[in-house]
Amino acid sequence: MGSVVDLNCDMGESFGAYTIGNDAVVIQHITSANIACGFHASDPNVMAQTVRLCKEHNVQIGAHPGYPDLLGFGRRFMDVSESELINYIIYQVGALKGFIDMVGVTLQHIKLHGALYNYMVNEENLFLQVIGALHKAFGNVIFLTLGTQRAQAFKQLCKERGLRIGLEAFPDRMYTDEGELLSRKYKEAVLKDPDTIAQRAIRMVEEGGIESVNGRWIQMHIDTLCIHGDNRESIVAAEKIHTYAQKAGITIEALCNFI
Amino acid sequence: MGSVVDLNCDMGESFGAYTIGNDAVVIQHITSANIACGFHASDPNVMAQTVRLCKEHNVQIGAHPGYPDLLGFGRRFMDVSESELINYIIYQVGALKGFIDMVGVTLQHIKLHGALYNYMVNEENLFLQVIGALHKAFGNVIFLTLGTQRAQAFKQLCKERGLRIGLEAFPDRMYTDEGELLSRKYKEAVLKDPDTIAQRAIRMVEEGGIESVNGRWIQMHIDTLCIHGDNRESIVAAEKIHTYAQKAGITIEALCNFI
Amino acid sequence: MGSVVDLNCDMGESFGAYTIGNDAVVIQHITSANIACGFHASDPNVMAQTVRLCKEHNVQIGAHPGYPDLLGFGRRFMDVSESELINYIIYQVGALKGFIDMVGVTLQHIKLHGALYNYMVNEENLFLQVIGALHKAFGNVIFLTLGTQRAQAFKQLCKERGLRIGLEAFPDRMYTDEGELLSRKYKEAVLKDPDTIAQRAIRMVEEGGIESVNGRWIQMHIDTLCIHGDNRESIVAAEKIHTYAQKAGITIEALCNFI
Amino acid sequence: MGSVVDLNCDMGESFGAYTIGNDAVVIQHITSANIACGFHASDPNVMAQTVRLCKEHNVQIGAHPGYPDLLGFGRRFMDVSESELINYIIYQVGALKGFIDMVGVTLQHIKLHGALYNYMVNEENLFLQVIGALHKAFGNVIFLTLGTQRAQAFKQLCKERGLRIGLEAFPDRMYTDEGELLSRKYKEAVLKDPDTIAQRAIRMVEEGGIESVNGRWIQMHIDTLCIHGDNRESIVAAEKIHTYAQKAGITIEALCNFI
Repeated sequence: MGSVVDLNCDMGESFGAYTIGNDAVVIQHITSANIACGFHASDPNVMAQTVRLCKEHNVQIGAHPGYPDLLGFGRRFMDVSESELINYIIYQVGALKGFIDMVGVTLQHIKLHGALYNYMVNEENLFLQVIGALHKAFGNVIFLTLGTQRAQAFKQLCKERGLRIGLEAFPDRMYTDEGELLSRKYKEAVLKDPDTIAQRAIRMVEEGGIESVNGRWIQMHIDTLCIHGDNRESIVAAEKIHTYAQKAGITIEALCNFI
Repeated sequence: MGSVVDLNCDMGESFGAYTIGNDAVVIQHITSANIACGFHASDPNVMAQTVRLCKEHNVQIGAHPGYPDLLGFGRRFMDVSESELINYIIYQVGALKGFIDMVGVTLQHIKLHGALYNYMVNEENLFLQVIGALHKAFGNVIFLTLGTQRAQAFKQLCKERGLRIGLEAFPDRMYTDEGELLSRKYKEAVLKDPDTIAQRAIRMVEEGGIESVNGRWIQMHIDTLCIHGDNRESIVAAEKIHTYAQKAGITIEALCNFI
Repeated sequence: MGSVVDLNCDMGESFGAYTIGNDAVVIQHITSANIACGFHASDPNVMAQTVRLCKEHNVQIGAHPGYPDLLGFGRRFMDVSESELINYIIYQVGALKGFIDMVGVTLQHIKLHGALYNYMVNEENLFLQVIGALHKAFGNVIFLTLGTQRAQAFKQLCKERGLRIGLEAFPDRMYTDEGELLSRKYKEAVLKDPDTIAQRAIRMVEEGGIESVNGRWIQMHIDTLCIHGDNRESIVAAEKIHTYAQKAGITIEALCNFI
Repeated sequence: MGSVVDLNCDMGESFGAYTIGNDAVVIQHITSANIACGFHASDPNVMAQTVRLCKEHNVQIGAHPGYPDLLGFGRRFMDVSESELINYIIYQVGALKGFIDMVGVTLQHIKLHGALYNYMVNEENLFLQVIGALHKAFGNVIFLTLGTQRAQAFKQLCKERGLRIGLEAFPDRMYTDEGELLSRKYKEAVLKDPDTIAQRAIRMVEEGGIESVNGRWIQMHIDTLCIHGDNRESIVAAEKIHTYAQKAGITIEALCNFI
């Protein structure tokens, strides 16, 4: 890839009377949105609104299913069996699909959320089962996963089976030496400075990697950069990524255009 | 109609470790199944299993959305706004659609559950809004509603708008003088004797009506009879309906074949 | 009363990753806190923290139970039976009591939340049943209710039965001609200007009433004023109430000191 | 102990329209009941009824808190932090305490449920934190834990701190070589034959141990035997335990009488 990258952001995480995020602003800076589906965050009204917001801004839509744990925001591991996991995900993506179909847009991708995303990174066989089931139910959507060193081979394996993978990096998250996301339990896990985040984003794409928390080089394959929109700093970071990308000759566009 | 009727039953109402109903038996006696969608009953695993069960038995599938009230089994009125209501229903039907699409069958109908079903019977304008939204999201599905005297006109109105309605009767439920279901708060609300239920079912179809709890004649328009499958008696009632229908020259087949 | 009044505020309404309110600031301005109990808002962690916060600031604690409707923040009527209602409330108050007992403080009062509060205002017999059950479970706590014209008689009736009632007014809410809270569906239902709110609060106490939305005089009996702490304006209003009360010779102290 | 043992059973696990167990029958055979508290099973109505049932039959009451996972019946591990865990448990026990206080009985014990019970068996330090917090909130109740070989030392350690422990065995569950319960994932995990279960129960008490799934001798310390009441077989097993215990000179009585 190298000269083209997608920018994705988790959106639609509000619930009932509770608001999280700044969707109306962040939507202006991204090409793909991961919309929560009601298990770890969101509700039917928020989903309907977020799908409409994406349509208005011509932003591609992805489903963002998580563990059935609203209380824990899907950030806690739950020991769920394979068949349950697949059914939980189909349920959530299907629910989002209803709103997508109602306004006549399409489902571009599926990205697992939080602890479920992290768990699946190391469970390739299970992930293949999940992707296969989702492919049956929702057709030729793109599945996002962490762009670790071995993920490139996984992407190729999936391609041979007719399954599309998008590899992801997190410029505002610190990585372990193994190339995984450092747990949010550690205070250095999440970077806050907009300029640092933006520069890391560009380096990740240009150099195909980044230093771990211990300074070790982590090789990456990147189709999409995940940014956040919770606060003013992260919006500034998103703006800077666009500016720096333009200077570096990196095109930012939605996954469906190049995967 | 007169000589053809559909037999529907609520199914897939179990939840996690909790079992309700006797789906594996009742499936053998019906032509259409109303599958709960996780708000008032059911969960993703139960939904997946119930969709497969329907496919195996060649029974048509309907979505059975309800109020978000698992604790009350969707049997309690909740003062939900119009837009919320529509979004709750789209969410639930969409979720079921995922499992339907995965196994390659189709969604025949949508039937609201419990207190939501009863509430909507008297809210024709709201019901039209709901049906319109669902039509946009899920295409040309059939919507069930109580076959009251004025429902025939409603059905016609919908037909002119390209919306399909199926009119329903409940042979094991007592009716008020107004032609509505007598609330389960009253002990005479639910009939138990299999032969009485079966005879009422046949009379409803043949004579186009039944006596109310006070003996008043209630005129009905009937496309489908709702039966229950919770206990041995209701299974016997279902068997008797088939026997009596055959004698009376009434064909039992799925709604999609004649609506 | 007249020269003494309590200031109460709903607190501890955050949930999991979701934050509502500004508890750490508003706690400095009130004498009694109504703590949500996990059905319409809050969770065990938030409850534990909020109880500790009250203890640190020497603010009296009340339980704030609501309908089991997190999605609707307890603001929607649900058709719940009497025995269910009583059990829902005992469950919630008991849960809060665990945290109260752990830190060695006491439960001063119980105030119902949202739609449940509004519903009960017109259901005196049911309210008596509820209060009686809660008295059995939690002893001699104070029950808050809207200080309508007939509430004074209700308070007296309760007193004769050994039950303590606190009468409440809402200076930032508009009233109907019947002396009830104007529904939040109307945009004039909630006042925003801090000075107007503070002046209404003082008038309510001094004059024992306020004008309705249509300008009709609504007589009130007031033991406690409910304020809000969601935004900067409401904090300013709280500060002004203290200032104006001091000028007017009104003492602000917790309910338990004078009921 | 040896000549005295308590018989406990999980009760009050029904939820809304869903029924589990056979509480009205099993209550006749036990001395202590573990009542679910609404997180993994039960609801406020079921809790109120179950507390009354226990009072009527003079059966001692225990709280049976679990993970917040109704969908998984509390049988799945969730990666919950220490402070969250403590707060979840206090919330649930407090809620049950409300119903207990309302009818004027006492809380004898607390037994964790399912995956939470199993997790805590190997987390002595965390368990001590939990017990300490619960002791603060609910006073001198008894805490149940699996009567493994090292549990006797743990019980002694607790005793020195003023905390009471009851050691438990499961005659209808198979044990691993390490003395833990064999996971329900294995089909031999749960024994069904009433006579086998009853004989195991007596041997466990008389001989202070039982063979593991691999035939290895597992030493146990036993204050209470957990039985189940889900089906006819388990009721028969309970009856046989009483018969065999009488023959063997083993007294069956509630924990509070001897711990």
